[in-house]
Amino acid sequence: MSSAKYDVLGIGNAIFDILVQTDEGFLASHGMTKGGMSLIDESRAAAIYRDMGPATEMSGGSAANTIVGLANLGARAAYVGKVKNDQIGKLYAHDIRAAGVAFETRPATDGPATGCSYILVTPDGERTMNTYLGAAQELMPSDIDADQVAASAIVYLEGYLWDPKSAKDAFVKAAGIAHEAGRQVALTLSDSFCVDRYRGEFLDLMRNGTVDLVFANEAELHSLYQTSDFDAALKQFRADVNLAIVTRSEKGCVVASKDDVTAVPAFPIEKMVDTTGAGDLFAAGFLFGLVRGAGYENAGRLGALAAAEVIQHIGARPQTSLKQLAQQSGLPA
Amino acid sequence: MSSAKYDVLGIGNAIFDILVQTDEGFLASHGMTKGGMSLIDESRAAAIYRDMGPATEMSGGSAANTIVGLANLGARAAYVGKVKNDQIGKLYAHDIRAAGVAFETRPATDGPATGCSYILVTPDGERTMNTYLGAAQELMPSDIDADQVAASAIVYLEGYLWDPKSAKDAFVKAAGIAHEAGRQVALTLSDSFCVDRYRGEFLDLMRNGTVDLVFANEAELHSLYQTSDFDAALKQFRADVNLAIVTRSEKGCVVASKDDVTAVPAFPIEKMVDTTGAGDLFAAGFLFGLVRGAGYENAGRLGALAAAEVIQHIGARPQTSLKQLAQQSGLPA
Repeated sequence: MSSAKYDVLGIGNAIFDILVQTDEGFLASHGMTKGGMSLIDESRAAAIYRDMGPATEMSGGSAANTIVGLANLGARAAYVGKVKNDQIGKLYAHDIRAAGVAFETRPATDGPATGCSYILVTPDGERTMNTYLGAAQELMPSDIDADQVAASAIVYLEGYLWDPKSAKDAFVKAAGIAHEAGRQVALTLSDSFCVDRYRGEFLDLMRNGTVDLVFANEAELHSLYQTSDFDAALKQFRADVNLAIVTRSEKGCVVASKDDVTAVPAFPIEKMVDTTGAGDLFAAGFLFGLVRGAGYENAGRLGALAAAEVIQHIGARPQTSLKQLAQQSGLPA
Repeated sequence: MSSAKYDVLGIGNAIFDILVQTDEGFLASHGMTKGGMSLIDESRAAAIYRDMGPATEMSGGSAANTIVGLANLGARAAYVGKVKNDQIGKLYAHDIRAAGVAFETRPATDGPATGCSYILVTPDGERTMNTYLGAAQELMPSDIDADQVAASAIVYLEGYLWDPKSAKDAFVKAAGIAHEAGRQVALTLSDSFCVDRYRGEFLDLMRNGTVDLVFANEAELHSLYQTSDFDAALKQFRADVNLAIVTRSEKGCVVASKDDVTAVPAFPIEKMVDTTGAGDLFAAGFLFGLVRGAGYENAGRLGALAAAEVIQHIGARPQTSLKQLAQQSGLPA
């Protein structure tokens, strides 16, 4: 195994976020499930957007947010995801490159527009996402550069890749190349409804060794094992994957390896403004700790710190230097 | 004079903001004049954007920000400005309509893209704007709807309209219609460099009665009369216009009519994050007070309150209910 050019390569749906602060009534009147990610088609996107208040836009996408967080912490990071070469796709490509991430995926030149998520943030800070995949549908196995994957210490994949039609093939291809090169493969389960759609396939990925590390929040964990018993679900999770990381919002996180379980508290915050990106940034901090060999507890603390930054402002990408925040907290960065 | 359908109709350059927090070094290395608005062409826009960090996007444009602030306060507001029917133009049209503003200007179907301003926000909160006018260049006198202008109690115009080639004709047309209908015409001087480009014409507009109310900040006032003596400049300003409003940042504002001068303090803030939109939102609050007959002092306080809200977050449009803020402060709203 040669030394890695990248610490982490992320693969995901490249999605532009259109964020608005709204009230609970908006969710109810549009039949939205609070806290979830719903896939929408173009006509539903138009109907939601028509009724939405003035918005703020910024680049998003779950794995992309994680990768940007990693670069912000000082990791060498790369991303694979599909936008179209339209105005929004150009904003997207700018933002991820400007964050210091290697991003070489060829944009689509025809077909649907760059994907967008219409994100409703309620007064309690919870976000409800309505995602039009658009060009993200066009991610193909041919977008995976074998040399780049083989040169990355960790390949990080989002469960959302099961939604577009060909992206799962890209996922499996990347995981295979990574393992052949002696690298590690990480997966985030993304969303409890996503787990509900692909439970069997996600369990297969874990049980047949396609993925080595899996991130889940409590809702995703409970959905995966169809139980409301946390301890029972965690026990199964540990049996199914080499390293299981469960985020529990204000209760912190649990890192469970075959040998040991480490609980790490959440990072204190002043005010929760918008949970968009909380899990993504937790994964960024955790993976950063992991590639720096900081140990599970410090990795968990780095995850908690990065998540705490992102939930205290609108949007899913860091607005300050996580590296400096980590240093100020005495964490390795 | 019939009763007005709109309290205020704003006409301006419709510009999409691409905002980034950066350091002083970025301004220096790109030869930017801190705090100003520079017009840039497409190639300079590309060069600046290439070097900029990850950005946040939202709709902007000086008069548009004012009009959105007015609608947020509860005024009946309309806007005229030119975007293209491209992706960014559609975001722009959505945002202003979603804010409750009547916006019927036909988008351009060919020619340059929707205008953008690349806004660099330094750690002191000051913003430096680099504006590519794009489709805003295409605003024509034919975009002015005479009935709409005649039905608006105040027509509010930005000095920036002197930059695109035909917009000043639209400006003069609108002012003429407004006065024929017995309405008032307000102007903001926009930017000290803009004043420097069009000093003589702006003075003519004031002296020949094309405009009744003029907003200026200190730098614009000093540029207009080419003096660093505030009192001398204010004296000339009062002589040239029926109602002169000068904003002085943390020193508050001065409202000078022919009969009287009223000084109003600034509104206390916790932390200045981004001055983008400070003058625009001051004008929103002031004009709201005016159309509600609240008197110059209360109008000045409403302006100070709206400006204080917008400088405490990134972006030039309010992120909370100014109406509620005003009510909490015991101001008319």
